[in-house]
Amino acid sequence: MPQEHLLTGIRVLDLSRVLAGPTCTRLFAEMGADVIKVESAPNGDMARAVSRIRNGRSLYMVQQHLNKKSLCVDFRTAEGIGLVRELVPHCDVVVENFRPGMMAKMGLAYEDLKKLRKDIILCSISALGQTGPLSSKPGYDTIAQAYSGVTSMIGEKDQPPYIPLVGLGDVSTGAHAAFAVAAALLHRARTGRGQFLDIALLDCYYHYHEAGVHQFSGSNGQFKPTRTGRHFSYVSPCGVFRANGGSIVIIAYLHHWKDMAKALGRPELADHPEYATDQVRCERREHIVELIENWLATFPDVDSAVAALERHDIPCAPVLSVEQTVTHPHHVQRGTVRTVNDPYAGTFQIPGMPIKTSDYPAHNPDYIAPRLGEHNRLVLQELLGKTDAQIDAWSKSGVLCEGEF
Amino acid sequence: MPQEHLLTGIRVLDLSRVLAGPTCTRLFAEMGADVIKVESAPNGDMARAVSRIRNGRSLYMVQQHLNKKSLCVDFRTAEGIGLVRELVPHCDVVVENFRPGMMAKMGLAYEDLKKLRKDIILCSISALGQTGPLSSKPGYDTIAQAYSGVTSMIGEKDQPPYIPLVGLGDVSTGAHAAFAVAAALLHRARTGRGQFLDIALLDCYYHYHEAGVHQFSGSNGQFKPTRTGRHFSYVSPCGVFRANGGSIVIIAYLHHWKDMAKALGRPELADHPEYATDQVRCERREHIVELIENWLATFPDVDSAVAALERHDIPCAPVLSVEQTVTHPHHVQRGTVRTVNDPYAGTFQIPGMPIKTSDYPAHNPDYIAPRLGEHNRLVLQELLGKTDAQIDAWSKSGVLCEGEF
Repeated sequence: MPQEHLLTGIRVLDLSRVLAGPTCTRLFAEMGADVIKVESAPNGDMARAVSRIRNGRSLYMVQQHLNKKSLCVDFRTAEGIGLVRELVPHCDVVVENFRPGMMAKMGLAYEDLKKLRKDIILCSISALGQTGPLSSKPGYDTIAQAYSGVTSMIGEKDQPPYIPLVGLGDVSTGAHAAFAVAAALLHRARTGRGQFLDIALLDCYYHYHEAGVHQFSGSNGQFKPTRTGRHFSYVSPCGVFRANGGSIVIIAYLHHWKDMAKALGRPELADHPEYATDQVRCERREHIVELIENWLATFPDVDSAVAALERHDIPCAPVLSVEQTVTHPHHVQRGTVRTVNDPYAGTFQIPGMPIKTSDYPAHNPDYIAPRLGEHNRLVLQELLGKTDAQIDAWSKSGVLCEGEF
Repeated sequence: MPQEHLLTGIRVLDLSRVLAGPTCTRLFAEMGADVIKVESAPNGDMARAVSRIRNGRSLYMVQQHLNKKSLCVDFRTAEGIGLVRELVPHCDVVVENFRPGMMAKMGLAYEDLKKLRKDIILCSISALGQTGPLSSKPGYDTIAQAYSGVTSMIGEKDQPPYIPLVGLGDVSTGAHAAFAVAAALLHRARTGRGQFLDIALLDCYYHYHEAGVHQFSGSNGQFKPTRTGRHFSYVSPCGVFRANGGSIVIIAYLHHWKDMAKALGRPELADHPEYATDQVRCERREHIVELIENWLATFPDVDSAVAALERHDIPCAPVLSVEQTVTHPHHVQRGTVRTVNDPYAGTFQIPGMPIKTSDYPAHNPDYIAPRLGEHNRLVLQELLGKTDAQIDAWSKSGVLCEGEF
């Protein structure tokens, strides 16, 4: 039984796979919505093959699909598509992240869905958008990131850039899509109308440029934003510093500099003309970094150096590894990380829900990610009134599928 | 006159500054909500001092505050706080990103606000959350990123990591917060109840670990996720490759490898035992990267190399600089980048709205970011029925302020 939460009462038909779409519908499912995940027979979501670390169960699936129902139909059959179409009138929202054009080929374009339910909300997620000359390009996170200019802002100026090895484009685009869907539901409540939402990783990545685009354009091209290593280019000191056994992020520009000077045991540098302003410190960035790193080297480890910085009220943080985060008292106490207990894979940790509310717990320990096709019968009987005989026949002919997990 | 949009009819009292909070309320303001930005006298949002590139006008302000109203009050006076409290009953939502504890000190804690309006929704945004042992630490984006483990996933394994020089934590947390607020508004419509929302950059960053946390935990610590340079560690080839004049993201693992082998003019590598699987290619990653970069070096520039990759159906993208994005036909046509025309700073470009809908234009060319305190009189008269004489007196005593821009 799903726990009452902010989004109770909303039903989502989820045709999406792997990450951006599933992130959107995960936020809905864990916040009380009824999410029917429709998977493509015979193998279902590609994510079922990923992170099969324990007993052949995909831990990736567990992380992305708690409290969703799984219906597995063959999209290549008329009966399979027919069942999807029959479900539309029972759902408030459809979410998909096929390659642009694919939904129309399956007879599931927005115009088609509107004929099935006049006020349907369709949220289409893609790498580069449903429109524009690049829209048909393959939809990988890092491709959208490269086109957005964000990749160009990571690494050393005279070297090829780096890509963060986390699913940030997909996951944060899923969050944007969830916002768009919720906004469209508010709009529907006010106007009675549905909506088509076109959410692209490229657009989401692009608005992370909080200053670069207007700085380039507003300076008529004089200022060309680019990566500048481990440190900010326009304030100093600010960036990643080497310490014994790891790295520390230190933010000691503007008024923090005088505290940094004190911490260094060089209080006279607070007002020294070669050190006093961010401008001169930026011009001598290498020297400033060396000064701080030499001081950090006098501490035996990251924790003792962070403690010294904190005693001087200097904003800082240890660069934690994933390993360090899962047992950090703050992360555990706050539910930034959480423990799930899966019936097939046992107990392990995944990230917590990023939305914390006053009225409801962030996590329901009873939520389980569905086995492939686990809810074929439930969904088709409860919502469409199909008989056991019909469902058995579809299972036999392959229109419906079930999997071990 | 605001254009009708998905969030028309909602009023937001926006006490936030700089980036994460303003991103949340920007999404609301540009989607039709009435957003009253309350700024702290005498100087207002710190962002007013940033990117003053044209005529002393902050382009940063323009990007973050289109279609918001500005009310500038002195938070250190009882009258200033009194006006904020008087506005609460007229607003559906309050958004703030002060350091945790600050709202309570000003008499604006959730419990205080509830007494002013029973069903108020308060969204508090912070770096590390309102709860937990680290919650009082200073709230910078990169500090949350370091604690989340995301920073540890960027760069070379044996070197300190890099930080992306874009506002990704603040901006994407703003999007998460916008989703949380919209969900709370849906909940209020169903139950009549308000909500307190605790949104942290740390939590948002943390759930970008689409696999790392469960891989570490699920393998009982055997697999320790970390940065592995410019290339993925578990599939190959996949990452950033050097080309003449720039870099290219190439994704040529799994079934794409045979196309890559053809592109290289080495079709026999598709099935060669030392090249045929992702596993062997990962083991020989340096060699594979060299093979591809040597081939890329035969093209005069990035565009011709990308064209060759595309002819072979290999997913790829040029790593665009910010400069290249603002004139790219796709970005312009799609509205990924847009042009604003500010009355004080003239015409320049900023990122487009990441939410594209079927019924409404994404951008309203008439929207303007407010001057400091521009709407003091309008807001206090229309909503609170204050007289000209009262407002003049507050302006004279400094409880209300106005600025040039």
